[in-house]
Amino acid sequence: MNVDGKHYRTIWLEEPDCVQIIDQALLPHEFAVMELRSPKEMCEAISRMHLRGAGLIGAAAAWGIYLAVLKHATQADFADQMQAEALALIATRPTARNLEWAVERMQKALTSCSTPEDRVACALRVAQEITDEDADFCRRIGQHGLELIREIAKKKNGEPVNILTHCNAGWLAFVDHGTALAPVYAAFNEGIPVHVWVDETRPRNQGASLTTWELGHHGVPHTLIPDNAGGHLMQHGQVDIVFVGSDRTTANGDVANKIGTYLKALAAHDNGIPFYAALPSSTIDWEIGDGVKEIVIEERGADEVCRMTGWDEASGKAVTIRICPEGTRAANFGFDVTPARLVTGIITEQGISPASREGLHALHERPDASR
Amino acid sequence: MNVDGKHYRTIWLEEPDCVQIIDQALLPHEFAVMELRSPKEMCEAISRMHLRGAGLIGAAAAWGIYLAVLKHATQADFADQMQAEALALIATRPTARNLEWAVERMQKALTSCSTPEDRVACALRVAQEITDEDADFCRRIGQHGLELIREIAKKKNGEPVNILTHCNAGWLAFVDHGTALAPVYAAFNEGIPVHVWVDETRPRNQGASLTTWELGHHGVPHTLIPDNAGGHLMQHGQVDIVFVGSDRTTANGDVANKIGTYLKALAAHDNGIPFYAALPSSTIDWEIGDGVKEIVIEERGADEVCRMTGWDEASGKAVTIRICPEGTRAANFGFDVTPARLVTGIITEQGISPASREGLHALHERPDASR
Repeated sequence: MNVDGKHYRTIWLEEPDCVQIIDQALLPHEFAVMELRSPKEMCEAISRMHLRGAGLIGAAAAWGIYLAVLKHATQADFADQMQAEALALIATRPTARNLEWAVERMQKALTSCSTPEDRVACALRVAQEITDEDADFCRRIGQHGLELIREIAKKKNGEPVNILTHCNAGWLAFVDHGTALAPVYAAFNEGIPVHVWVDETRPRNQGASLTTWELGHHGVPHTLIPDNAGGHLMQHGQVDIVFVGSDRTTANGDVANKIGTYLKALAAHDNGIPFYAALPSSTIDWEIGDGVKEIVIEERGADEVCRMTGWDEASGKAVTIRICPEGTRAANFGFDVTPARLVTGIITEQGISPASREGLHALHERPDASR
Repeated sequence: MNVDGKHYRTIWLEEPDCVQIIDQALLPHEFAVMELRSPKEMCEAISRMHLRGAGLIGAAAAWGIYLAVLKHATQADFADQMQAEALALIATRPTARNLEWAVERMQKALTSCSTPEDRVACALRVAQEITDEDADFCRRIGQHGLELIREIAKKKNGEPVNILTHCNAGWLAFVDHGTALAPVYAAFNEGIPVHVWVDETRPRNQGASLTTWELGHHGVPHTLIPDNAGGHLMQHGQVDIVFVGSDRTTANGDVANKIGTYLKALAAHDNGIPFYAALPSSTIDWEIGDGVKEIVIEERGADEVCRMTGWDEASGKAVTIRICPEGTRAANFGFDVTPARLVTGIITEQGISPASREGLHALHERPDASR
């Protein structure tokens, strides 16, 4: 997508020995590109969250392996060195499924290479494949979701289609396009008038900091709202459709996504508003049926609830403040599960299906073999 | 209620010419008592939000009139002076119904006085009446709600009763006890084990800053959560009952309360958890039936969404930060309306009634003549 008119992906090979990324640690207050020239630098970029998001982390891991191959290709103990590098990459974000998947795909491809030149060429090719595939899957999600927006636009006589989204499932979380926001970008790029209500998404504020930033720099009209406001907007006809991402989708169509998604799904259901989850089919977990019962929800540190970081205009720097009494106990659940009965449909790169076992099976191979 | 073991109200007459309040502008970071010796100082305390909350504003207005009487009682143009002071008080928070109500009650009482001594004695008596009545109504709400907690406690075998609340409808918003929190304090003071999930309540964070502060200083166990988390907790059996306040309740039992209340009511309903609104019956608006259609929701400034104030531990002072890109458009709705079908019951000083026209009528005179 664009940043002030210039096309960017979140990660790309700038020179044969230099991977570049958009440094997301500084967003939305500063836009900077970060250079990564070694697997160690890539590990640090991932663990310190200079990049984040399921799809992007997978691509970053692939480029981490590529940088490791550049470093070790000519060494006699190549296999051992690569194994150590792979473990270091996987250790950066132990719960990121895409990370392990990408590292394994790279390692598997490399087993057939015997010369240093082969190794480098193979790593380059597969890392680029993984990257392009992520962008292409998201582009396809966008095309499928676009049809939903197009249908609503027909009934709105030129008034903008109002879309509500939660958290950041935009292009910053992937290589390009995003999942929940891919249909929005597709519609906007076709000239369909759209407007996005952006949930700020406490406690980490990914909506306030990242979704507003990426929509704004691409030029998509949007309005930031507290997470509390979505129900009121839906009661008053201000939301036409809801798009969210999904970290994990069960075989039944239950959607695990950022904490608070369930509350928005309840409000959409109560007001007859379509609610879609958009995701690469690789995140469907065919082994799990009932998401509320079976998915263990990550608990994170209380500091993310009690403290908040933002821009202090007086001092011109980022400052972290405490918003509650000292010593307050806080709970911080990363995700919640939206039961399939509240989900109108699941959008993947394969198409749109009902949020049900039958619906998901009809569109997707099981176990997923598509990537 | 108590602050570290010492009993406080939010407002009291300290000396014949000195009203004192808890200065809420500094909470939760500093606890201070503020002295008010003139109607002008009271106006400033109200308009600059050194005190807030429906019940407390009413009592403050009454004491503002008392301070005005002290100033003007001996003057020949007493009536004109008092009229000007009354208008100034009402102008401090034009939408606070209780403020106007208290000022009018004071003015009406003063019409029967002819000597300066009479005026002062009458103003003192009625201001104290209004103050005591607010505290007593809240105490009675607490006693009615206590029965609900007691019933749940019986089934929990000594495990704490988990209560979820939104915003601050605690004693800081009234003279004492509060509304939503009155049953919690009543149960705690009786030794029933309770634990409160405190919604932080974006955008103004009244939960994070005030509810945590007052529960903590009274000694009630509590945990701060993002507004996004309540649904997840309810899905997992972590919430036994929800208590919220209400800024305005319709004759049908629809509840207008802080933005986000509706989302919690939906989640409570979806999980079979009782959801109660607690309020003085004076806030029932018998002229309005359908709250979603008929109540106009106040829109506040975008800055409350885009910026946040908290304690910067590095500099040891309160700092305001921006949490989104510069120039981001934001919407800020103060309240939402929870339809009566999602409300298990309405608790007032008169008792507990179903959230319906019939239920409210059975318990309350119409139009309300109880205060």
